[in-house]
Amino acid sequence: MTDLVTFGETMIRLSPPGNERLETTTELEVRAAGAESNVAVAAARLGADTVWTSKLPDSPLGRRVTSELESYGLETAPVLSDEGRQGTYYIEFAGEPRGTDVIYDRADAAVTSAHAEELPTERIREAEWFYTSGITPALSETLEETTETLLWTARDAGTKTAFDLNYRSKLWSPEEAREVLEGLFEDVDVLVTAVRDAENVLGAEGDREAIARGLAEEHGFETVVLTLGAEGALACHEGEITRQSTFETETHDPIGTGDAFVGAFLAKRIAGGDIGGALEYGAATAALKRTIPGDIAVVTPEEVGGVIEAAESGISR
Amino acid sequence: MTDLVTFGETMIRLSPPGNERLETTTELEVRAAGAESNVAVAAARLGADTVWTSKLPDSPLGRRVTSELESYGLETAPVLSDEGRQGTYYIEFAGEPRGTDVIYDRADAAVTSAHAEELPTERIREAEWFYTSGITPALSETLEETTETLLWTARDAGTKTAFDLNYRSKLWSPEEAREVLEGLFEDVDVLVTAVRDAENVLGAEGDREAIARGLAEEHGFETVVLTLGAEGALACHEGEITRQSTFETETHDPIGTGDAFVGAFLAKRIAGGDIGGALEYGAATAALKRTIPGDIAVVTPEEVGGVIEAAESGISR
Amino acid sequence: MTDLVTFGETMIRLSPPGNERLETTTELEVRAAGAESNVAVAAARLGADTVWTSKLPDSPLGRRVTSELESYGLETAPVLSDEGRQGTYYIEFAGEPRGTDVIYDRADAAVTSAHAEELPTERIREAEWFYTSGITPALSETLEETTETLLWTARDAGTKTAFDLNYRSKLWSPEEAREVLEGLFEDVDVLVTAVRDAENVLGAEGDREAIARGLAEEHGFETVVLTLGAEGALACHEGEITRQSTFETETHDPIGTGDAFVGAFLAKRIAGGDIGGALEYGAATAALKRTIPGDIAVVTPEEVGGVIEAAESGISR
Amino acid sequence: MTDLVTFGETMIRLSPPGNERLETTTELEVRAAGAESNVAVAAARLGADTVWTSKLPDSPLGRRVTSELESYGLETAPVLSDEGRQGTYYIEFAGEPRGTDVIYDRADAAVTSAHAEELPTERIREAEWFYTSGITPALSETLEETTETLLWTARDAGTKTAFDLNYRSKLWSPEEAREVLEGLFEDVDVLVTAVRDAENVLGAEGDREAIARGLAEEHGFETVVLTLGAEGALACHEGEITRQSTFETETHDPIGTGDAFVGAFLAKRIAGGDIGGALEYGAATAALKRTIPGDIAVVTPEEVGGVIEAAESGISR
Amino acid sequence: MTDLVTFGETMIRLSPPGNERLETTTELEVRAAGAESNVAVAAARLGADTVWTSKLPDSPLGRRVTSELESYGLETAPVLSDEGRQGTYYIEFAGEPRGTDVIYDRADAAVTSAHAEELPTERIREAEWFYTSGITPALSETLEETTETLLWTARDAGTKTAFDLNYRSKLWSPEEAREVLEGLFEDVDVLVTAVRDAENVLGAEGDREAIARGLAEEHGFETVVLTLGAEGALACHEGEITRQSTFETETHDPIGTGDAFVGAFLAKRIAGGDIGGALEYGAATAALKRTIPGDIAVVTPEEVGGVIEAAESGISR
Amino acid sequence: MTDLVTFGETMIRLSPPGNERLETTTELEVRAAGAESNVAVAAARLGADTVWTSKLPDSPLGRRVTSELESYGLETAPVLSDEGRQGTYYIEFAGEPRGTDVIYDRADAAVTSAHAEELPTERIREAEWFYTSGITPALSETLEETTETLLWTARDAGTKTAFDLNYRSKLWSPEEAREVLEGLFEDVDVLVTAVRDAENVLGAEGDREAIARGLAEEHGFETVVLTLGAEGALACHEGEITRQSTFETETHDPIGTGDAFVGAFLAKRIAGGDIGGALEYGAATAALKRTIPGDIAVVTPEEVGGVIEAAESGISR
Repeated sequence: MTDLVTFGETMIRLSPPGNERLETTTELEVRAAGAESNVAVAAARLGADTVWTSKLPDSPLGRRVTSELESYGLETAPVLSDEGRQGTYYIEFAGEPRGTDVIYDRADAAVTSAHAEELPTERIREAEWFYTSGITPALSETLEETTETLLWTARDAGTKTAFDLNYRSKLWSPEEAREVLEGLFEDVDVLVTAVRDAENVLGAEGDREAIARGLAEEHGFETVVLTLGAEGALACHEGEITRQSTFETETHDPIGTGDAFVGAFLAKRIAGGDIGGALEYGAATAALKRTIPGDIAVVTPEEVGGVIEAAESGISR
Repeated sequence: MTDLVTFGETMIRLSPPGNERLETTTELEVRAAGAESNVAVAAARLGADTVWTSKLPDSPLGRRVTSELESYGLETAPVLSDEGRQGTYYIEFAGEPRGTDVIYDRADAAVTSAHAEELPTERIREAEWFYTSGITPALSETLEETTETLLWTARDAGTKTAFDLNYRSKLWSPEEAREVLEGLFEDVDVLVTAVRDAENVLGAEGDREAIARGLAEEHGFETVVLTLGAEGALACHEGEITRQSTFETETHDPIGTGDAFVGAFLAKRIAGGDIGGALEYGAATAALKRTIPGDIAVVTPEEVGGVIEAAESGISR
Repeated sequence: MTDLVTFGETMIRLSPPGNERLETTTELEVRAAGAESNVAVAAARLGADTVWTSKLPDSPLGRRVTSELESYGLETAPVLSDEGRQGTYYIEFAGEPRGTDVIYDRADAAVTSAHAEELPTERIREAEWFYTSGITPALSETLEETTETLLWTARDAGTKTAFDLNYRSKLWSPEEAREVLEGLFEDVDVLVTAVRDAENVLGAEGDREAIARGLAEEHGFETVVLTLGAEGALACHEGEITRQSTFETETHDPIGTGDAFVGAFLAKRIAGGDIGGALEYGAATAALKRTIPGDIAVVTPEEVGGVIEAAESGISR
Repeated sequence: MTDLVTFGETMIRLSPPGNERLETTTELEVRAAGAESNVAVAAARLGADTVWTSKLPDSPLGRRVTSELESYGLETAPVLSDEGRQGTYYIEFAGEPRGTDVIYDRADAAVTSAHAEELPTERIREAEWFYTSGITPALSETLEETTETLLWTARDAGTKTAFDLNYRSKLWSPEEAREVLEGLFEDVDVLVTAVRDAENVLGAEGDREAIARGLAEEHGFETVVLTLGAEGALACHEGEITRQSTFETETHDPIGTGDAFVGAFLAKRIAGGDIGGALEYGAATAALKRTIPGDIAVVTPEEVGGVIEAAESGISR
Repeated sequence: MTDLVTFGETMIRLSPPGNERLETTTELEVRAAGAESNVAVAAARLGADTVWTSKLPDSPLGRRVTSELESYGLETAPVLSDEGRQGTYYIEFAGEPRGTDVIYDRADAAVTSAHAEELPTERIREAEWFYTSGITPALSETLEETTETLLWTARDAGTKTAFDLNYRSKLWSPEEAREVLEGLFEDVDVLVTAVRDAENVLGAEGDREAIARGLAEEHGFETVVLTLGAEGALACHEGEITRQSTFETETHDPIGTGDAFVGAFLAKRIAGGDIGGALEYGAATAALKRTIPGDIAVVTPEEVGGVIEAAESGISR
Repeated sequence: MTDLVTFGETMIRLSPPGNERLETTTELEVRAAGAESNVAVAAARLGADTVWTSKLPDSPLGRRVTSELESYGLETAPVLSDEGRQGTYYIEFAGEPRGTDVIYDRADAAVTSAHAEELPTERIREAEWFYTSGITPALSETLEETTETLLWTARDAGTKTAFDLNYRSKLWSPEEAREVLEGLFEDVDVLVTAVRDAENVLGAEGDREAIARGLAEEHGFETVVLTLGAEGALACHEGEITRQSTFETETHDPIGTGDAFVGAFLAKRIAGGDIGGALEYGAATAALKRTIPGDIAVVTPEEVGGVIEAAESGISR
């Protein structure tokens, strides 16, 4: 039996080496990147039997995506299509005050036309968990409908559902996002969201504990996980609050930190861990991710365990 | 006064290093590439006062294109837009039997919405020559209309027009191409076309001389230049036939050979050369281009002259 | 049901870029390489449901191997071990007269201690075909025994067995090889061998047809495939001779040509192809392989089909 | 009308990648670099109609310089010469205590023989501003004379003149510098100098305000800008003092920080900004420059504006 | 006369670029690395007439080692052998919490069979100093014996001996190490050891001064140098204690810091420096080393002197 | 005793990767290159006890040269100087008709001021052979005198002298060269020259045999070796003619072919080989050189022997 199915867009990420500018670079580094496959790889590497599904162009570019994801040990089950592009994004890294700059080039990606009927929904029905994020319904009207159908399908089959709000201002406004996302929440068991998105998009108010409790009550979530950036995370699970601070890390590439957190959180929950253990596992994996180039947490359970142990023993490695 | 204005799409070309496959590459080389800017750079470097115009996204990717073109000494005059993507193409190089593989990702490029009114048409009216190719009207209905307007504008102002048929089977069928292109020919003075496109697209028949003469007569072209691949080129100019063989070359990157030929041909015509001299200049520049990575003929007049001299003296350099 | 199981060592291949020398290089390119995984990837990409098994160190180096193999779409089922090294080989590429130079550093690799009992023999029993090569028994006494057991296990279960002689003079002498290999042949259905190895190692004599027939008769092989280098291949299948010439190719990296041939041959046989079709499919895949960096034929069925069609139509692509 | 003309040497900068040492590197990164072209690019990118002039060898190396400068959108107007080398400098980057090491190899560069008569002085006469720096007269006796002539030409035509003291101890002693530079000051409107050069070379004394006022009074400068390293800058303009602190930055490549400051300062002054606004604009551009590899501030007005806004709003981007 | 002979294994170090993981890298950087050659290069570059000896495979890989060592100006005198591998190690660099990961692949290296008789012992006898480290006897029983013989040989000839404890937990246990090492100490004049190894391996107790004094007294060392990580070093020489703090440094590659310290310490002692001067010279060289990629301190006496002067003058360069 | 001393300039060679143009490259590959050190390395690697001397700047660039030469196993004995530059040359590789383009930037190199008195002439006096080439006296008047002195010194001490004419049209005219070189010939035992230089510079006439005989007689050379490009070489030794054809080779980098020939020729002569054997050894080494990037023949005696054997046995490796 599959532990976890995730669904969403995976792009090709193109970045100049070092601190070079996109305007002048003669070379781009190529990697696969997407919230739902980032989560899937982290979960798979940490012990969950995971499969990622999506819709990709039947081309070397589509194969570039699955090739990399499979290299991390993930099972992929994409639909291949002769229509639609391979979505890409360009990212230029720099320190402050220049900061990191992202240009999305994902319009008309093959995945934007993905209907639930063409996707391997039986894998979702048979799985323990299903995961997608708020990026998916934002990509097209078709995907809005597909996301709804997949979440309903999972619920209907007794598959638990986890959802990361993942608000992207380049895709829609807070108002548009709120309307669509709140319509999806009835089929969601576990909501993960940055606290600022809870405020800006969902209109949550009050201190963090109040926000978590409020969301859980309003939408009937079994679990709400608020991510707090440098301050860690806070969960409200069946009415109980748990807090988790971050682990110290020297950041090499911050992209994908949240996805690493969620993937590890789910892997630990699937393995029977309690909320506190899952938050800690997520935070340790997130700290490791930040040392690794690319969007994806190429880690091992031993490494994550080592981070937790080292912190507990108060000894820096 | 400007000698030559060219108009058309310039893409970002992305290619894996060496013989690597797109499916597995971790790196892409980045270059600017487009028939009309390829022609413009070749002409500019060989002495013609040339300007290239187009429509580009107002982004680091759009600037990547002008940055590279300006680096070759070309004047660029693009319209910048907040709408539309930067077109790209992926190219994987290999010897036979694998061959070179191209994936276009140019749909919805900013240029596809370029209207004549927003372009610097006064530059065309003041110029001696205007050049575009059959790729341009194939990209969108708007561009079909724009191409027609620009050719008419040139003619109206006494600017000579050169047009490379440049048939691309990934953009339209021979029938679609023929209908549109023949509509444009009344405003074209110089037609350049591969002989096989003359046959497949325009339905030309007979031997090469007959094809060149036939096209010239049917559409009233002052000059028809047929490119013949390894066999060189043949021109029918005011009823007179001139032939040009190719110069020997060791091919490193064949893309852009035809554009190098046209750019050099036009530069020589602008400088007062006769048809035979212009064909020879084009063929020598094309031979140099094949030794240079990228779509663009980064050459000097001295180098082109040297190729011609060396061949004449029968001495290999 | 699995179509094909292969077993053997996969090394990490380390090669200086371009024509650089090992003695002076500051950089090495890293790839996974091994006859049995080369065959497995080729077969898997060409449609056969294939799994590769071996024994690897439980380390980042062992994972480097599976990571790359999985990236090509192959299922891997290695045993992981805390004992034994990751085998490597260094390869320096150059044209003649320097030639290509190989340094094996594979002694005490984890795989050399692999016993049949720890390997997934049930996968072999359930599969249609099993494949290994003459490199495997040459690596250690344990592997000599394991090879024998696996071939017997396959036969016992009705799984067909294919075996590539793959003589390596750095591993054993022709005499040692002959003694061991001939002991294995009773459980082999399909023997593939370079004709010069048939002569030097097995003592075969006569013209090629006679050699193929002789080997088939002597050891009761259903099929003998002789590879003839630039002259192609020749098979004796159930007493009938079939010949196949090579396809023209521009060689970028010749390593793994034979493995690409065998993988494609087996994929076509598994798909129901006759011997002639399988030889042709193998030869076309081998031609493509030579254009691809690394040991492995990263190809698609469409590409292999295209090579055959192009050759049939007499048209170079 | 041209806003700004700059004149000075541009070198080819050669640097080992990463922290590698010149003594052992197998590779050098290549960039164009020179105080006056650094200033020119910064000014041009920030809206000033700028042209850079110099004397370069008529060779691929000379073209390497203009090629890169034009790629940033700068107009170049160099004199080309068959005499004289292309100046280069080698730079090895490292953290403390090794520090950054520079080796100049600029003797006998083509520019050292540049006479005012061969330079496009009409461009200077027609421009609003002219800029050069104290490096230029230090390079040769000819250039000492040329610098004097150009500054006089500018003044004579009503073109404002800006001059950065830019003392280089590898080129001359403080005493030699003082004698030459003070002779030039009568034709300078705006002097920029590091405070330590004002002290060491010009013998200025007192606190910073006193130094700025003193220089302005002594030489009749309209504006004196003292750069203070990490403490920012201080200007005395028509007797009034303005201070500017630095913006926070994560330094990737510090070379060219001062030139970025000056280029942006001039662009803002040309656009009508007051001294305070110009200092702020300069400081923000300098902060961005430090995140960019190479000597040159490849920035946009939007980026510079964004740095200022972010600092004002107290929000880190 | 030779100032210093060192003996020990030099490996080929293979590291992914940047922060990449071994599991997924496509490229490895190649360098020579080994405690005793690290020490030898540092000493040689700082003025000591130094020769390094070892046993290497007679292959391009063995030559890769000597090639790099000779490039730093070191004299090498290895025995070449047709038996035994070239030892390698893989190192993956990352910040915390991932940390730096090392995989040794040095078993059965040619050096493990090196007997004293085949080594150039006359060079040791004629030298002023001999140096090896605790890694050497840990590599094989043969090397345990060889180390003992070489130290005895040196002593017997009046050559001073220096020994770095260099405990490696991947090679042996503290107990095994202690037994072997204490047997060697009677022929050692100068012991260098990290204080934590003194405690864990040798069972030293008390504060640092007590540990140094205790070791000196127990084993009759003329000098004991304790390295204290970020806290610097402490020496007990003929009963007198000297302390040395570290110099500030921006770490690029920390590997080999201790060896740089020892090499410079010995060079200064050989040049007649006192213990305090030698410790300071060692600490300054160690600080420089940390800015340099690779295991080896590619420095000059001018640079080391510059670090000391800059610190004394309180002026950061 | 030293077998061979060579004296001459070694430059830093800077070349764009692949077929890139100098005008647009962002990267240069760095190598040491110079006729006399090329010869010295080839001779040293093939068994001759060789030392190269020259004058270099006392800088990281000067050390870059010795570092690389020592890495090939050559002993270097340069004089270090605070005056004079490090000579460089830029080389752009391409196939025909573009061809390979060289830009020398060697004026005022430190070596141009080298006087015989500061060079290690005692090494020449003690050596069996001394070698320099016609490039050396062309570099400066000082070097013209120094070359004369060194050749005389060698003769005076009974050291045999070998001299390669190595005419460089960028350094002097044929007439200038002839006058200087013929003045040196009285102290030369072995002259090597391309046949076309013998004709163009020395005015030799007749067929090749006549040219070789004529030069030998006119100047009293013991040996004259004419190199004939693709046709091999021809020697006149003590009146007897020997011919040598070239070995087949796939050219990767042709620079330094002649120096590899000379270095191997001298090594074989030093080892007691006859003229025929030395020519064959030279030709085989030259063939290997062409497969190796850079100016220098990084070869082994086994490889050279292998080339000769393979050719003799008629078997391609």
